[in-house]
Amino acid sequence: MQHSVLKASGHVDRFNDFMVKDVNDESKFFRADKLLEDVMDEKLKAADLTEAQRVEYTSVRNQADAYSQQELHQIFQKYKIKSPETGNDLSEPYEFNLMFPTPIGPGGYLQGYLRPETAQGIFLNYKFCLEQNSNRLPFGVAQVGRSFRNEIAPRAGLTRQREFTQAEIEYFVNPKNKAHPKFKMVKDTVLTLFHSDAQLSAQEPVKMTAGDAVGQGLINNETLAFFIVRTYQFLLHIGLDKEFVRFRQHLPTEMAHYACDCWDAEIFGSYGWLECVGIADRSAFDLNAHARAAKCDLQYKESLEKPIEREVLALTKKSGVDIMKAFKKDGRAVKEFIEKLPQEEIECIVKQLEAGTADVQVDGSSFTLTKELAVFERKMEKQTVNAFTPGVIEPSFGIDRIFASLLEHVYYARPKEEPGDDKDKQTRGVLAFAPSSAPYKCVILPLDQRIARDERYLTMMDAFQVQLVELGLSFTLDESNATIGKRYSRNDELGIPYAITFDFDTLEKDLEDLANTKVELLKQFFQAEPPKTK
Amino acid sequence: MQHSVLKASGHVDRFNDFMVKDVNDESKFFRADKLLEDVMDEKLKAADLTEAQRVEYTSVRNQADAYSQQELHQIFQKYKIKSPETGNDLSEPYEFNLMFPTPIGPGGYLQGYLRPETAQGIFLNYKFCLEQNSNRLPFGVAQVGRSFRNEIAPRAGLTRQREFTQAEIEYFVNPKNKAHPKFKMVKDTVLTLFHSDAQLSAQEPVKMTAGDAVGQGLINNETLAFFIVRTYQFLLHIGLDKEFVRFRQHLPTEMAHYACDCWDAEIFGSYGWLECVGIADRSAFDLNAHARAAKCDLQYKESLEKPIEREVLALTKKSGVDIMKAFKKDGRAVKEFIEKLPQEEIECIVKQLEAGTADVQVDGSSFTLTKELAVFERKMEKQTVNAFTPGVIEPSFGIDRIFASLLEHVYYARPKEEPGDDKDKQTRGVLAFAPSSAPYKCVILPLDQRIARDERYLTMMDAFQVQLVELGLSFTLDESNATIGKRYSRNDELGIPYAITFDFDTLEKDLEDLANTKVELLKQFFQAEPPKTK
Repeated sequence: MQHSVLKASGHVDRFNDFMVKDVNDESKFFRADKLLEDVMDEKLKAADLTEAQRVEYTSVRNQADAYSQQELHQIFQKYKIKSPETGNDLSEPYEFNLMFPTPIGPGGYLQGYLRPETAQGIFLNYKFCLEQNSNRLPFGVAQVGRSFRNEIAPRAGLTRQREFTQAEIEYFVNPKNKAHPKFKMVKDTVLTLFHSDAQLSAQEPVKMTAGDAVGQGLINNETLAFFIVRTYQFLLHIGLDKEFVRFRQHLPTEMAHYACDCWDAEIFGSYGWLECVGIADRSAFDLNAHARAAKCDLQYKESLEKPIEREVLALTKKSGVDIMKAFKKDGRAVKEFIEKLPQEEIECIVKQLEAGTADVQVDGSSFTLTKELAVFERKMEKQTVNAFTPGVIEPSFGIDRIFASLLEHVYYARPKEEPGDDKDKQTRGVLAFAPSSAPYKCVILPLDQRIARDERYLTMMDAFQVQLVELGLSFTLDESNATIGKRYSRNDELGIPYAITFDFDTLEKDLEDLANTKVELLKQFFQAEPPKTK
Repeated sequence: MQHSVLKASGHVDRFNDFMVKDVNDESKFFRADKLLEDVMDEKLKAADLTEAQRVEYTSVRNQADAYSQQELHQIFQKYKIKSPETGNDLSEPYEFNLMFPTPIGPGGYLQGYLRPETAQGIFLNYKFCLEQNSNRLPFGVAQVGRSFRNEIAPRAGLTRQREFTQAEIEYFVNPKNKAHPKFKMVKDTVLTLFHSDAQLSAQEPVKMTAGDAVGQGLINNETLAFFIVRTYQFLLHIGLDKEFVRFRQHLPTEMAHYACDCWDAEIFGSYGWLECVGIADRSAFDLNAHARAAKCDLQYKESLEKPIEREVLALTKKSGVDIMKAFKKDGRAVKEFIEKLPQEEIECIVKQLEAGTADVQVDGSSFTLTKELAVFERKMEKQTVNAFTPGVIEPSFGIDRIFASLLEHVYYARPKEEPGDDKDKQTRGVLAFAPSSAPYKCVILPLDQRIARDERYLTMMDAFQVQLVELGLSFTLDESNATIGKRYSRNDELGIPYAITFDFDTLEKDLEDLANTKVELLKQFFQAEPPKTK
C-alpha cells in the first residue's frame, strides 16, 4: 500500500508502540505497555496486598496501553521499573512505527508499506461501493486477509504475530441516525459487559441485555450494539464457551479522540482475557482524512423529503459582481470560493471585516476583502439536500486469536470411565469442534477389516465419496485394523464431530439409502448446535 | 518470509527478470522479454511477410522469456531494438530481483521478503503435512493467498499486478510411480494441446484425449495429465468458453533444469493467449533444496513389502575399527560418514585409492584415506526400506487472470430484438456468469409497486430472506418502480443468473411453498451447468 494512503490515514505518523531499551544492552528491548502490565501482574500477586494497592495496580494495568509517552515515563519512574533479566536501567519510552516498509517498482522511487489493517483498502473503495449500493446508506463492506505489523515482541503462540489474518467490516451510516432496523431481533440477547467505569474502579463486569445497554447509554447506539450481538452470536456459533466471552469498553484515554465508543470482544484462555474482536464507532474520521488528502468529495448527499428553510449569511448580488470586477481574472474564483464557504467561516470573515479587512486563500493566492467590497446579508435558504460524511462502525476480527481461543475452549480430556480403570490407560483428549468450525466434518469407519475388504464396501464407498464431495463436506477415512472403539476415540481427538460407520447391515442397503443419509447429513449441518464441551 | 527460506529455494539468487534501460533516460525501463514480444508482434503484422519470416518471428516471440542474458543481448543487437518512445539505444539486459524486501523486527537485523509465491510455505510444512496424512504418499496440500512480485511494468488490467491472488496445490508423489488412481475417470477428456515442438516449428495446437497424450509421451505422466484435466474442468465449470482454453507446453529452454514437464493453461482474451495456470512437474528440486539448507532429512521411507537383496560396497569390520583408531577423536565421525555415503561416491573413493589416496571432508576437516586403512568389500545387503525424496506436481493458479478472462468470456451485448427497434434503445450488456462464479446468485423482484407495497409481500420477504441466508445464497433486491422487463435486463447486466419474481399468485401461496422453492434452488445450484453465452 502506498505511502500517500497510509500518510492520509495517520498510520505513517501515529501507528507506533512505545518501546524501552536496556541502557547497557541495545539488543534487549521491550514494549513499554506489555512490560508495565507484567510488572503490575507481579505486584498483584503479593500476599500482603491492601485493597487500596489492589485498586491502584489494577487501574494502572488496565490503562497500560492508553498512557501517553510522558505518562508512561513518569509511571516507569514511580515504580522504578528495570530491565527484567539484567536489572539495568531502561531508556525513556520512545516511538517505533509498526509498519513494514518496502520500496515499490524497479526504480525504488515509490515508498510502500505492507498494510497494517485491511480497513484502509475499504475506505479507498468507499465511493465505488456506495455506487454499487445504488447510492443508499447504510451499507457494509467486508474483507478478510492478511495484515502485517512489525511487532516488537511476537509472543504467546498465535496471539501476537507479525503476519496475521484479519476480517473487517466497515459499516457506513448516517451519523445522525445510528438506529438499526434489525436491532429488534437481537435486543434481548444478554451480554457480559465490562464498561470503562467498572474497569477504572476495579469492579466486575455486568450482565445485561443489548436493549438495556443501549437504553441506559452504556453502548452508544443501536448499530454498534447490533454488531456486538452479531459478534457474540458468531463466536458461540463456531463453538466458543459463552461463559468465557465478554465485551470490554475502551477507556476514554485508550480510545482515539474521534471515536464515539469502542468495545472489544475478549475471550478467556491461557493468556487471561484476550482481545479478539474490536467493535468501534470511528465516526467520520477515516473518510474525512482520505477526502482531505485526495482532495475529493466523499460527502453523502441525502435528498430531504421535505426541504428545510434556514437562515444563512450570503454575499449580496451586487457584492458578488463587485468582487468579480475587483479581482479581474481571479474574480470568479474568489466569488465562488466565498459562496461555498461553511457558515462558520463566513461568520468569521464578517467579524474580521467589522474590525478591518479579511484575507482569503484561493488556489494558493491571497486576496484581501474590505467591508465595502464584501457585503453579506442574512436571508432564508431552502435546503433540499443534506450533505454529511458517513460515520463508520467497524467490527474488526483477529481470526488467529479467535482460532487459538477456540482450540482451548473445545479441548477437554476424557475422564477414565471407571475408578478401577487400568492406570496405564491413556487419558484421551477430545476436540469438541462445532460442525461449522471442524476441519473434517465426518470420518468414515468400516466396522472392522472384514467390512473394509468387502467388495460391496469398496463399491459403495466410491459412490458415497462422490456424494460427500458434492455436498462440500470434508471427510476422512479410517480403515486401519484398530478396534472401532479406539478409532472413535482417536477421531474425537482429531476434532471430527460426526462418524459414519459401515457395518454388515449397511452393506445390505442400497445406494438410495445412502443418498438419504446424505440428505440427513445436510440437514444436520444446517441445523447443528455446537456440542456440549464439558 | 525470511531470507534463509528464499535463499534455499533459489529466489534470492534467481528470481529475476531481465531489464533494459533507455541509455539517455534512466526513468524509462522495460522488461526485455515483453519488449521483444511487442517488437516481434509488430513485425508479424507486416503486409509483405514471407513464410520464412513468419516462422522466424513467431519462434523468437514464443521463446522471448526463455532466452539467457547473453542470447537476449544478441537478439536485441540483431533486430536493432531501440527504446520505444525515444528511439534511443538500450542498455544491455541486466537482472532485477522481483521480490519486495522488508526488514523484520524492531532491530531491523532480520532480512525478509514478501512471498513471491505461496508454494514455499507448503514446502516448509511438508514434513508436518506428511505426518497428518499418516505418513502416506501421494498427498496434496493446497493454499490460496496473496503473492507479491515487484513487476517492472505492471500492465493490462488484472493480468500483471504487483500484488495478486495465487492458488497452488503441491501434490507429493513417488517419483518412480506417477500413475494416478483417478486418471481413468478423466482420460477421455479431449484437450487442446500446444506442445513445444509445434511452437518451435510455428505449427498449430492439436486436439487429443488426455489418455492418448500420456500414451504418446506428449504429457510426461498420469498425475500431471490428471491435474491438467481437472484444471480444464474447473475453468469450464466457472464459465470459461472451452474453445478459448488451451494447454501450452513449456519449451525445453524455458523450463527449469530440474523440471520434467510443464504445461500452462492459456485463456484467450483481449491480450491474446494469456497464461493463467501453470501445471509443472518440479521433480524433487524444492524439497531437496530445503533439506540441504536446513540440514534435515526430508526423504520418504517406503517400507518394501518384499525386501530386496542388492550388492553393495561397504567398509570391512576390521577397516572400520582401524579408521576409528587412526583418526582418534574424529575416528567415529569419519567411519560413520563413509558408511553413509551413497554407493556412487564409495565407488569413486575406491577408484581414487587404487591410484593413491582419497580425501574426505567431515565437519569441515579433511581426512586422508589410504588403501591400507580403508578396505571395502562387496557384500549382499537386504533392503527393507526404499528411501527417496518425493517429486512434486504443482498446479499454480493465477486467480486474478482467470477472473479477468472470465469477465471477457461471459460478457456479450444483447442484440436488438427487432430490425425495427427504436434506434435510441440502448444495447444491453449481459454478464452470463455460471451460478458457481456469480457474485449474486439471485435477484428478488416484486412484479410491480402494488406487490412491493403489499403487507403480505413484506412478511414473506422477511422469512424468505432468512432462508436464502441459511442456504448461503447471496441475493439482492430490486424493488424500484422500473418495469419488470427493464429490471430483468439490468440484472442480466449485473451478472445475476437467477431471478425470483413475486406476483399476485405468489402472494396467495404460503410459506411452505416458499420452502419448496428453497429446495428447488438448492438443487439448481448443485446441478447447474454454465449458461450458454452466445
